[in-house]
Amino acid sequence: MYNLLKGKKGIIFGALDNNSIAWKVAERAHEEGASFVLTNAPIAMRMGEINELAAKTNSQVIPADATSMEDLENLVEKSMEILGGKIDFVLHSIGMSVNVRKGKHYTDPSYDFTTKGWDVSAVSFHKVMNVLYHKKAMNEWGSIVALSYMAAQRVFPDYNDMADNKAYLESIARSFGYFFGRDFKVRVNTISQSPTKTTAGSGVKGFSGFLAYAEKMSPLGNATALECADYTISLFSDLTKKVTLQNLFHDGGFSNMGISDVIMDKFNE
Amino acid sequence: MYNLLKGKKGIIFGALDNNSIAWKVAERAHEEGASFVLTNAPIAMRMGEINELAAKTNSQVIPADATSMEDLENLVEKSMEILGGKIDFVLHSIGMSVNVRKGKHYTDPSYDFTTKGWDVSAVSFHKVMNVLYHKKAMNEWGSIVALSYMAAQRVFPDYNDMADNKAYLESIARSFGYFFGRDFKVRVNTISQSPTKTTAGSGVKGFSGFLAYAEKMSPLGNATALECADYTISLFSDLTKKVTLQNLFHDGGFSNMGISDVIMDKFNE
Amino acid sequence: MYNLLKGKKGIIFGALDNNSIAWKVAERAHEEGASFVLTNAPIAMRMGEINELAAKTNSQVIPADATSMEDLENLVEKSMEILGGKIDFVLHSIGMSVNVRKGKHYTDPSYDFTTKGWDVSAVSFHKVMNVLYHKKAMNEWGSIVALSYMAAQRVFPDYNDMADNKAYLESIARSFGYFFGRDFKVRVNTISQSPTKTTAGSGVKGFSGFLAYAEKMSPLGNATALECADYTISLFSDLTKKVTLQNLFHDGGFSNMGISDVIMDKFNE
Amino acid sequence: MYNLLKGKKGIIFGALDNNSIAWKVAERAHEEGASFVLTNAPIAMRMGEINELAAKTNSQVIPADATSMEDLENLVEKSMEILGGKIDFVLHSIGMSVNVRKGKHYTDPSYDFTTKGWDVSAVSFHKVMNVLYHKKAMNEWGSIVALSYMAAQRVFPDYNDMADNKAYLESIARSFGYFFGRDFKVRVNTISQSPTKTTAGSGVKGFSGFLAYAEKMSPLGNATALECADYTISLFSDLTKKVTLQNLFHDGGFSNMGISDVIMDKFNE
Repeated sequence: MYNLLKGKKGIIFGALDNNSIAWKVAERAHEEGASFVLTNAPIAMRMGEINELAAKTNSQVIPADATSMEDLENLVEKSMEILGGKIDFVLHSIGMSVNVRKGKHYTDPSYDFTTKGWDVSAVSFHKVMNVLYHKKAMNEWGSIVALSYMAAQRVFPDYNDMADNKAYLESIARSFGYFFGRDFKVRVNTISQSPTKTTAGSGVKGFSGFLAYAEKMSPLGNATALECADYTISLFSDLTKKVTLQNLFHDGGFSNMGISDVIMDKFNE
Repeated sequence: MYNLLKGKKGIIFGALDNNSIAWKVAERAHEEGASFVLTNAPIAMRMGEINELAAKTNSQVIPADATSMEDLENLVEKSMEILGGKIDFVLHSIGMSVNVRKGKHYTDPSYDFTTKGWDVSAVSFHKVMNVLYHKKAMNEWGSIVALSYMAAQRVFPDYNDMADNKAYLESIARSFGYFFGRDFKVRVNTISQSPTKTTAGSGVKGFSGFLAYAEKMSPLGNATALECADYTISLFSDLTKKVTLQNLFHDGGFSNMGISDVIMDKFNE
Repeated sequence: MYNLLKGKKGIIFGALDNNSIAWKVAERAHEEGASFVLTNAPIAMRMGEINELAAKTNSQVIPADATSMEDLENLVEKSMEILGGKIDFVLHSIGMSVNVRKGKHYTDPSYDFTTKGWDVSAVSFHKVMNVLYHKKAMNEWGSIVALSYMAAQRVFPDYNDMADNKAYLESIARSFGYFFGRDFKVRVNTISQSPTKTTAGSGVKGFSGFLAYAEKMSPLGNATALECADYTISLFSDLTKKVTLQNLFHDGGFSNMGISDVIMDKFNE
Repeated sequence: MYNLLKGKKGIIFGALDNNSIAWKVAERAHEEGASFVLTNAPIAMRMGEINELAAKTNSQVIPADATSMEDLENLVEKSMEILGGKIDFVLHSIGMSVNVRKGKHYTDPSYDFTTKGWDVSAVSFHKVMNVLYHKKAMNEWGSIVALSYMAAQRVFPDYNDMADNKAYLESIARSFGYFFGRDFKVRVNTISQSPTKTTAGSGVKGFSGFLAYAEKMSPLGNATALECADYTISLFSDLTKKVTLQNLFHDGGFSNMGISDVIMDKFNE
């Protein structure tokens, strides 16, 4: 619509189906003139409809397990070949708690599940940046964004160990973001998005009730997946070159609310 | 360049001269297709070159003392007449400490100066929103931005009472932003900008040394006035509709640095 | 009970009646072996029962309008005479919004009321420290504490302009705390206390409903006035010598909650 | 000195030698009337002088690998036997980065080392609380404290993956603290301590230079290990019953400094 990403090259992780934020980001990045590679875990791709998205956005798909350095190295090399140069933007939209899936309570996890979820949801972001950094694969003033959630700062009991994973993820953004900024003029940020009705998000217990609560707490209501895509585009664009090491709340104001009138009234009923 | 503000109408406070952030915002908003009214305090305008900016951006100038409700009411009414409708974006870039100007130390101010600086630098933002709110002058999904500085969170000894004023300003953004969001779907945010070599900013004691320090602490270096204008445009655009009540650091990463290698090396010399 | 303040000398602002946090602090400080002077605004004292507290804690009362430098100078001089030396601890528990009292909405205040409330609730803290600093009235490793509320960080619609006043107050604690630390080894902090059923606190609209909400959101429930006094004693004691420039949440965990199970269940009803 | 912990029972992890913060906490807890069990990893104990501390504080030592649920279950059961009842306070002072030890740069770790360091430094805190929670081993109004560092919020380039580990640790404190508060009225907090010359801390590259920098940035100077022990005692005492889910900076003010006069002068030299 605005040509904000004209000529820019990217890699987008995590487009599972058309409810995914990453899916919307791909559509919007395409509209804004970017070319990019789509990637997802081989296992997630079998369930998804990513080829449809690839056709629609004139992009190629490279499967990669984001916990595998080998897969990531292959992904980054192939992406530069396909796109004809270095990368300008990367979206990391990957998260999964095995404890949540298996119904384990936060206080009583399987620590193997905890480790697996941490590796997939948080360490994968380090690995992605590790590969991009050592292959010098990012253009100057490039932008790397990962999706996070406010459970990294505050307690949402049903979010389970994803809260701790998101805290670790946001820390990686700062820690690696420093070196990426200093050495390559690349910015690294996380977006802390409203609860969003994605296929992944819906798995959380009591999700629809919580969605309604967040809607009523936020002066602008919850941010949708499409709105998140718009915001992500702004962070990939040249308008935000000096924003780095930040965790940016995109949530209709929820994060800075103590209480809203609507919630108070509902409570007083 | 991108038509990001095509058809949007705005009011821009605080363009003093071509070093001002507000000046750059006006230039960039014009490039992005917006029409707007420029305003400044009558006394500041005599010193400035605002008419040159008005000519360049095809905009009109309406003098207004931002501490005067009467002036602000006149400003908002006239602006809607001139622009032919309600307002989509507002920039508040106003700040002044009489204690700083008069060389009073933070621990030993004139409290009359403190009150005057607070009124000009912070309460003016409340008054601007008060008028916009009660005149129902903002379009839905409009965006109000005020410029702030990290002294609102952390100690910069020479920033004097402007630190406290900025803390109050940021609080107004949240407090009023709630009502503006709830009632008019308007977002309100502050940008916490790098130290910037504006005519106003330069007045702070030891400013150039501090500028160099911040440059070396920030992985991407300090953000310039033009970069701040770009970022402001993104916050006025439709890409950021659900960002509200936030204080957004635009500072090359300074705000999340503990120490950089360069500063550590310099310290160890 | 523990002799934590044995031999320490203090000034306690804001004991209105036996619901006041300052009242409880005085009782607890007395139990812990401190001697101190009580002070309050002349007008508040006529309403209160401060003489009863003075008798009980073997302390004297010196009326002082905390917005008057003259009164504060008199207070600090007299206190040092009465107590026989410099001061070790100070409690600032002063807050009042004229807009709230007069039923003015946040979006439509009387700015004279706004100024008066800001002066009483926030600037008074600067003035108190100004006098203590220039009279060199604090002993090394002394402790200054002001009471605040989380509305300084997050939106509580009915808290009105007290939110902005508390943000300014907390900023003063940092700004002045730097100079007090550097020059006199004195620490300055604010306690961000749970909503508390004091005579002052009860004035806020819909207060009892909000109290119940906060109780159910906080994993440990709301903190009482007496518990706040205990916490304040710990901050006056020698156990916390290196804690400074902090805003310390004393709220049963409320500040770091996103949502509690109880609130979620109530919402889902 | 004050009998603050009279009759209280505790478990103290991480006393390596008399530079350790945990060592000082043990000494101070003993002085304050507590009885407790000391524990450390079997391998760390061989290097340390923990038996000397045990004799001095009249306490017993139970070796436990804090990453082993079996060891922790044994530790908690034995501790309750030895101390004759449930536990009132726990100190988690455990941290170790294999990447740091092996000289791996943050951008190029061994991910096996990353996992090991995360397990020891962060997940161990979850495991400790898991055992205490399911064995119902904590008394009501008990207090659990873990030691952290500001690298969890801000970039200190040499702190390596310990930054991310501390972010995860602080998140565990909130996540588990919610359930501990709700179900057992137990509080959980982290102390974010100044850089401290412990045997562990000294391993960090360029540590002494950084220590000097932090000293000069902090208005009260760095907090020592003994001062940290004092502060920890206050958090174990009944004075802080309603403080929970918090990360508490104990750092002479460093965390809220933007710049100090001394650092600015040194920079300008």
